[in-house]
Amino acid sequence: MVAARLRDVASSPVRDLLALLERPEVLSFAGGLPAPELFDLGGVREAYASVLSGPRARLALQYAPSEGDPSLRALVAGRMTGRGLPTDAGDLLITTGSQQALTLVATALLDPGAVVAVEEPTYLAALQCFQLAGARIVTVPGDDDGVDPAALGEVIRQHRPTLFYTVPTFANPTGRTLAASRRAAVAEVTADAGVWVVEDDPYGELRYRGEPVLPLAAAAENVLYLGSFSKIGAPGLRLGWVRTRPAVRPALVVAKQATDLHTSTIDQAAAAAYLSATDLDRHVGRLCDAYRERRDAMIGALPSVLPPGSRWTDPDGGMFTWVRLPDGYDAAALLPTALAHDVAFVPGAPFYATAPDRATLRLSFTTPTVDEIREGLRRLGLALRHPDAQADSGTPGTMSGRKPVDSWTRTGQIASGAR
Amino acid sequence: MVAARLRDVASSPVRDLLALLERPEVLSFAGGLPAPELFDLGGVREAYASVLSGPRARLALQYAPSEGDPSLRALVAGRMTGRGLPTDAGDLLITTGSQQALTLVATALLDPGAVVAVEEPTYLAALQCFQLAGARIVTVPGDDDGVDPAALGEVIRQHRPTLFYTVPTFANPTGRTLAASRRAAVAEVTADAGVWVVEDDPYGELRYRGEPVLPLAAAAENVLYLGSFSKIGAPGLRLGWVRTRPAVRPALVVAKQATDLHTSTIDQAAAAAYLSATDLDRHVGRLCDAYRERRDAMIGALPSVLPPGSRWTDPDGGMFTWVRLPDGYDAAALLPTALAHDVAFVPGAPFYATAPDRATLRLSFTTPTVDEIREGLRRLGLALRHPDAQADSGTPGTMSGRKPVDSWTRTGQIASGAR
Repeated sequence: MVAARLRDVASSPVRDLLALLERPEVLSFAGGLPAPELFDLGGVREAYASVLSGPRARLALQYAPSEGDPSLRALVAGRMTGRGLPTDAGDLLITTGSQQALTLVATALLDPGAVVAVEEPTYLAALQCFQLAGARIVTVPGDDDGVDPAALGEVIRQHRPTLFYTVPTFANPTGRTLAASRRAAVAEVTADAGVWVVEDDPYGELRYRGEPVLPLAAAAENVLYLGSFSKIGAPGLRLGWVRTRPAVRPALVVAKQATDLHTSTIDQAAAAAYLSATDLDRHVGRLCDAYRERRDAMIGALPSVLPPGSRWTDPDGGMFTWVRLPDGYDAAALLPTALAHDVAFVPGAPFYATAPDRATLRLSFTTPTVDEIREGLRRLGLALRHPDAQADSGTPGTMSGRKPVDSWTRTGQIASGAR
Repeated sequence: MVAARLRDVASSPVRDLLALLERPEVLSFAGGLPAPELFDLGGVREAYASVLSGPRARLALQYAPSEGDPSLRALVAGRMTGRGLPTDAGDLLITTGSQQALTLVATALLDPGAVVAVEEPTYLAALQCFQLAGARIVTVPGDDDGVDPAALGEVIRQHRPTLFYTVPTFANPTGRTLAASRRAAVAEVTADAGVWVVEDDPYGELRYRGEPVLPLAAAAENVLYLGSFSKIGAPGLRLGWVRTRPAVRPALVVAKQATDLHTSTIDQAAAAAYLSATDLDRHVGRLCDAYRERRDAMIGALPSVLPPGSRWTDPDGGMFTWVRLPDGYDAAALLPTALAHDVAFVPGAPFYATAPDRATLRLSFTTPTVDEIREGLRRLGLALRHPDAQADSGTPGTMSGRKPVDSWTRTGQIASGAR
């Protein structure tokens, strides 16, 4: 009845969870949602009002070029250039969120049966997207410093992927960052082999400690960089972009035309008006101050909440910490118990393209306040101590064949400010 | 370098033309654009202001359900039910314009190599979409009353298509409407064969004479109906919808998640606010009054402009008339001459999935005013009389194998109010 490739693609458990979370008493660490109270509502309201009152107001309601609003492209290009990635407005294609940029890249680059290399675990809606395109997915090992360039080289030699997808900065779901020292090596090994890199960077500006690292795209020509307003502005506008390269630009524009003609004219015009009128760096600074506190609250509370033997990441930025419970736990089996305690998270298994580690889970710290984080983690602790929590407790010691990352923060050892 | 299927898909000549048309002195009959001076700018401005000032303002900037804004879905369902197509809010999936609905349907239903049946000529961005999905396209003959149900039955028996795509009411590009008497037959022949019908209906409410016809979807369960705000509201908001059926609903929602997670939250909320506050029927009535005048101006002027032997359609609604110049003309070859005379149109060839009739072209009458239509057609007449216009004039009588439709309005015979 439906296309064969659809039968293999599961609905996103994150988005399905969002539907369940309408019960207001649930404290959620599930969605990767920005904190709504930090939205610059006044600035956004003013931007729409000015766009719809100005001399070009009617143009904001009309069809528009597939590539995007010229003013918005120029403003984004200027901002990216300022962050160390020289970009022309003509390089940019505005997309309906960076999720769409992923779809367009898959449409433009992947024939059915093409191979895509990914980190594991990785952003699950990217996995969906590549599966829908009929791609075969292979995984590249990594550690706390991100993907291992030598292992990537080996995967490339063995599987000849068309592209390598990565979230190199404050990754979803792990919060990890590809070390600066590895970026040149990743660029080199892919460029040498003629493999495209898709650098998905929605979180890069949300840094809470340490020095910024340059995007991968600054190191090589074979990188398609995806950016987004969803985390630094507001996700409801669904605005993202891809920094195209000349070899794939026409194909991406055709894919964009066929997909939705163009992204909302009025949202693009409002974003351009907002960027022109606002000091976005200052707004991002406010976000970082608030999210830093929330990360610290979460990382500080985890030792007293998680069972002995648990490990978690302590991210320098972004929205997530990644937890690995002791052997025998199954995070998916834990979820109903957690929901019964009015707390939610995302089980880790769907973020794996191959063999999932079922003892993992993702916690987002950006939406709840510090007090809500403490209360939510207290509830999670209760759920973990509930008799139902350890569904597989009869088989301790099994690791689903996965090696724990030794450098993860361990229970009982309070996370320090450094990595 | 790019996916093989992309190499076969041309960029849309309509959208490429839009890029050329920024010269303000060009009068354009090319794009299927609504008239910007008829946008309800005040109503739209008020809708955004109220959404961004109300108690739920911050929710309008947040991530949202993939299926769409519940209020908007309820309002659209009510409106469709009122037009004779009983619809529940839960049937609807809100899309980023109805173009995206097409993409989602293609993703959900078509495996590579699947067969899609279409009218010929048909909406060219639908052709792009099906080509990108790797489908093989077959065409169904028709006449002034739309597709021929018996011929459709024959195509189904011969080619076993997965779906039949049609714009049954005021079609793009021809302006034709599938006769009420044929709708039940089309529904029956497809339902019996288990073929999905994709009914694309962006123009149905723009009727300038005659009685409304029920959507095809009202006659059978195997019809996916696509609607849009682009022609009755404003295209810049990129809001459309698909009336799903239970068998394909989950697949369409997964495809939507993977494509862009969801459509702009703020645009959906503003549209819901607008529909709640506005008498949309009255607004559509104003649009119809203005467009009727423009259609009449165009159809009235064509006899004095087009060369003897030309034919054209006289649509009951929508945005287009479809012109067939006499044998020997090539509309694509005429276009540079027309642009040199500061008038634009779309050559007909790209609307054909198989053998194009190069003597055809599409004229849109909704964007220019009545005076601009008269002046633009005067310029088109000059271009047609220019020595360069008849590139193939040495081969009169060739028809590219196409049979003219005898009932088309002919030169010298003023279009009557009836079909």
